[in-house]
Amino acid sequence: MATIDLNSDLGEAFGRYSLGRDSEIIPLVSSVNVACGYHAGDSDVMAQTVELAEEAGVGIGAHPGFPDLQGFGRRKMDMKPAEVQHMVTYQVGALLAFTKSKKLHHVKPHGALYNAAAKDHDLAVAICKGIAQVDGDLPIYGLANSELISAAKEVGIPFAQEAFGDRNYNADGTLVSRSLPDAVIKDPKQVAKRVALMINNQEIIALDGTKIPLKPDSICVHGDNQAALDIVKELRNGLSEAGIEIKTF
Amino acid sequence: MATIDLNSDLGEAFGRYSLGRDSEIIPLVSSVNVACGYHAGDSDVMAQTVELAEEAGVGIGAHPGFPDLQGFGRRKMDMKPAEVQHMVTYQVGALLAFTKSKKLHHVKPHGALYNAAAKDHDLAVAICKGIAQVDGDLPIYGLANSELISAAKEVGIPFAQEAFGDRNYNADGTLVSRSLPDAVIKDPKQVAKRVALMINNQEIIALDGTKIPLKPDSICVHGDNQAALDIVKELRNGLSEAGIEIKTF
Amino acid sequence: MATIDLNSDLGEAFGRYSLGRDSEIIPLVSSVNVACGYHAGDSDVMAQTVELAEEAGVGIGAHPGFPDLQGFGRRKMDMKPAEVQHMVTYQVGALLAFTKSKKLHHVKPHGALYNAAAKDHDLAVAICKGIAQVDGDLPIYGLANSELISAAKEVGIPFAQEAFGDRNYNADGTLVSRSLPDAVIKDPKQVAKRVALMINNQEIIALDGTKIPLKPDSICVHGDNQAALDIVKELRNGLSEAGIEIKTF
Amino acid sequence: MATIDLNSDLGEAFGRYSLGRDSEIIPLVSSVNVACGYHAGDSDVMAQTVELAEEAGVGIGAHPGFPDLQGFGRRKMDMKPAEVQHMVTYQVGALLAFTKSKKLHHVKPHGALYNAAAKDHDLAVAICKGIAQVDGDLPIYGLANSELISAAKEVGIPFAQEAFGDRNYNADGTLVSRSLPDAVIKDPKQVAKRVALMINNQEIIALDGTKIPLKPDSICVHGDNQAALDIVKELRNGLSEAGIEIKTF
Repeated sequence: MATIDLNSDLGEAFGRYSLGRDSEIIPLVSSVNVACGYHAGDSDVMAQTVELAEEAGVGIGAHPGFPDLQGFGRRKMDMKPAEVQHMVTYQVGALLAFTKSKKLHHVKPHGALYNAAAKDHDLAVAICKGIAQVDGDLPIYGLANSELISAAKEVGIPFAQEAFGDRNYNADGTLVSRSLPDAVIKDPKQVAKRVALMINNQEIIALDGTKIPLKPDSICVHGDNQAALDIVKELRNGLSEAGIEIKTF
Repeated sequence: MATIDLNSDLGEAFGRYSLGRDSEIIPLVSSVNVACGYHAGDSDVMAQTVELAEEAGVGIGAHPGFPDLQGFGRRKMDMKPAEVQHMVTYQVGALLAFTKSKKLHHVKPHGALYNAAAKDHDLAVAICKGIAQVDGDLPIYGLANSELISAAKEVGIPFAQEAFGDRNYNADGTLVSRSLPDAVIKDPKQVAKRVALMINNQEIIALDGTKIPLKPDSICVHGDNQAALDIVKELRNGLSEAGIEIKTF
Repeated sequence: MATIDLNSDLGEAFGRYSLGRDSEIIPLVSSVNVACGYHAGDSDVMAQTVELAEEAGVGIGAHPGFPDLQGFGRRKMDMKPAEVQHMVTYQVGALLAFTKSKKLHHVKPHGALYNAAAKDHDLAVAICKGIAQVDGDLPIYGLANSELISAAKEVGIPFAQEAFGDRNYNADGTLVSRSLPDAVIKDPKQVAKRVALMINNQEIIALDGTKIPLKPDSICVHGDNQAALDIVKELRNGLSEAGIEIKTF
Repeated sequence: MATIDLNSDLGEAFGRYSLGRDSEIIPLVSSVNVACGYHAGDSDVMAQTVELAEEAGVGIGAHPGFPDLQGFGRRKMDMKPAEVQHMVTYQVGALLAFTKSKKLHHVKPHGALYNAAAKDHDLAVAICKGIAQVDGDLPIYGLANSELISAAKEVGIPFAQEAFGDRNYNADGTLVSRSLPDAVIKDPKQVAKRVALMINNQEIIALDGTKIPLKPDSICVHGDNQAALDIVKELRNGLSEAGIEIKTF
C-alpha cells in the first residue's frame, strides 16, 4: 500500500500571543515541525508542543528559522553560510532537549530560510551541516528536486522530498510565486486528486503542461484556521479513497 | 593527592562585540562555563568556544542565564519556576548540540540566576529540573551549602559545591555583598592560601570568625582582564605548593 | 458636570501576532495607552495604532514597559533607576515620532513597571525623569495615592490619578492582589456604581470598610475580549445615568 | 573659504560590551551618527553618547539600522518599504528624545540599510518617508549621486551628499567592492589629497580614469581603533593645508 507523510507547522505561539490550532491539526497529520524560538515559539511553547506531539505519537521535527520574530522568519536575511549552520545547530539542539527520547524525527527549515535554500546551494549545504552537527542520521525535509535535496546528498544526511498539493508548479519544478493569480489551488478535492497523482505517478503537471518527475515523501498542510483544517480533512478522505495511507516513513 | 576543579566563564562575546580572554584562561582551568545566547554568546561564538574547549580538553559546561543581553544576565527577572525550567532546558540543549561527544560536563547558572537560586528553593528546583530534562546525569555547579545543592539532591541530579577563594563569607555561608568594603580579597597569595585551607580543612572562616563547614569541588576564577589572569596564575602556583592538583572531578 | 477619563491599553499586537480589539475599544474610551515595542507592539503596529487613535480623536499616551516581549512586561526586572529612566525616554520618544502633532497626551507605565513603581519611590522618580526628558509638560498616569504620584510632584511633571473600578482596594490604598479571591469585581453594574461613587464622593471603600480618599482622574478599562468590551459599555451607561461625562482632562 | 563636514559613527556599545573610541573621535569631527538600539547601542549608551556629543557641540545625527544586533546591521533583511519606513521613524524618534534641543542635525542610514538603499529606489524612499514623519526639515546623509539622494528630492527632505576619501570608485559612481584589492586607500596623505580634490574640483576620478562629478557635503571617517584615529588626524592636517575648513553645513 502506498503511503505518504503529512506534515504541519506547530508551536508558533509566543509568550502572551496565541497562534494556530495545534491540538486540532495534530490528529490529522503524521509529523509536525516545531518552531524553535527564533522566528516563533519560546521555550515554554516548545515544552508544551513537544509534550502534545509525543502524546499523539506524531513525528517531531525541528523548524529552525531566521532570527526575526517580528518578520516571523519570512524576511530573508543575508547571513553567511557558517552563521546559518550554527543557528540551525542551536535551534535543533534546543528543541531536541525537550523530547523524552532525545531523538528527533526530522528538521524542516522555515519560511524564508526554506525558500532561499531551495535555490541557494551554499545556504542549503550550511543548513545540512548544521543538522549533521546535531545528528548525522537526522533527515531534512526539503522542496522536492531542490538544492536542499542535493545538499543533503552532498553532506550525507537523510532527506525527505516535500511537495505541495495546493500549489501550482513552474516547468522547472519551482513553485509558482504567490504573487501570481494561479499560485494556490483552493479546491480541497482537486488538492487531494493532485496529491494522489503525485504519489501514484511520481510526477506533477506544471502550469504549462510540462510533466515534472516528483517522488514526494511528505506533503505540507496547514492548520492555522478552520478553512485550512477543512482542507486537510478532505485531503485525508481523498487519499483514503485513493488507497494511500497517511504515515510517516 | 587532593584535587580541585578551577572553573571560569567563557564564550561571552556577541556578534561584533568581543569580551574576555578565552584562549588565555583555558590553559589555566580544568572546566569552563559557556554562555548560551541569552545573557551573552551567540551561536557562532558557541561553536568557536566549544571547539576551543574541546581542543584543550577542559570540561565543558553550559552557563544558562536570564534572557537579558543588555543586562548581561545580572538583573533578576521575576520568572515563574516553569519558565525558568524551560529556559534552562533550551539553553543547555542548544550548547550540547555543538559538542562532538554530545555530552556536557556540567551546568552552572549565570549571574542573577545563580545568585537568586542560591536563596530561592523553588527557583533552584526549577533549574535542576531543567537540567534533568536534558540529562539526568548532568551535574550542576552551585554555591556550596546553598539551595542549589539541596535542590540538586531533591531532583536527583549530581552536583558540585562551588566556593570562591577571592570572596569573604558571612557566618551563614553566604557571600559578603559586593556593595560592602570587605567583599573581595585582592591579594592572590591570600586567595591561594584560603583555597588550600578550604580543601585541606573543609571549612572556611567567615568574616566574624565563624567556622563554616565547606567541602568545595570547584573554585570559580575569572579571566576577563590581565589582572584576573595574573590572580589565576598565582592561585595555581599556591595550590601546587600546597600539594593540590587542579583537575576536574 | 463631573467628568472622568476612561483609558485602555492598545497596540499590543506584534508582527504576525494579533492581540486585542483595538478598533472596538477606541470608540468607548477617551484616552489610550499605546505599547512601544519593548513588552508588546512593534513599529508597524505603532504606526497603525497612532493613526487609528488620531482618527478617533482620543488622547494618545505612551505605554512603556520592561524589555521583555516573552513576559509581556509582566515580569519585574531588577533594573537600576538610570536604566529605567533611559528606557522610558527611548520608548516615549519612539511613540511620539509617529504622531502628527508631535505631542502626546500622557504616559502610563505598563504592567510590572507600573506595579513596582507604585511602591518604589526611586523607580517612580526614574520613570518621571524619563518622561520629563522628552517633555516636561507630559502627564503621567499613576495609581492614585501611590509613589508614582508623589514622584511626579517631586520631578515636577503633571499627573493623573488612576483608579480601578473593577478592583477591590486594601485599607492602605493598594489593590487587593489578584491572587486573592476578592481581587476583581465582575458585575458591570457594580463597577459602574463604584466608579460613580469615587467621582462623586472622592473616596473608595476598602474591603475592610475603611474609607480611602481618592480623587480619580482616569479609570482603566480593558478591551481584549467581548466580555471586557461589554463591561465598558455597561460602565459607560452607568456613568451616563449618574450624570458623569466621559472625556479626558 | 571651502568647508567640509566630517562625520563618524558613534554610540555603538551595548550593555556590557564596549566598542569604539567615542571620546577620542568626537574632537576630530563636525558631526556624529549615533546608533539607535537596533543594530547597536542601547538606551543607556544613547543617553551618554548624546550628552557627550552635546558637550562637544558636534552635529548629532540618528544612525538607524536593521533590527539585527548579532549582525551589527550589516546583513541585509528583505523588509517591505512600509516596515523600513516605520523602523526608521521609531529609531529616529527614540534618539531625538535624548537631545536637549529636541532637534537632530541629520539622519544617516547604517550598514546594510545604507548600502541597499543606495541602489534600491523604493527602499530609499521608505527611509526618507520615515525621516519626514519625524521632521520634514531633517536632512539625510546619503551616498553622493545615489538613490538615497534622488529619494530625498522626491520626498522633499534636505540631504547631504556623502563621499568616501579612503575608497576607490567605479565609473558609475558606486564604490569598488571591499572584496576587490583596490577597494580601500590606506595612505592618509593620499586620502587627504583625494578629499581636497573632491571639494575643490567637485569631481572624483574613478579607478578606470573616468571623471565622476561629485559635490560632497560630508566625508565619512572612522574612529574604532588607533589606526583609524591617526588617519582622521592626517586628513584634518591635509585639509587644513589645502585651505578647507572642517565644519558642518
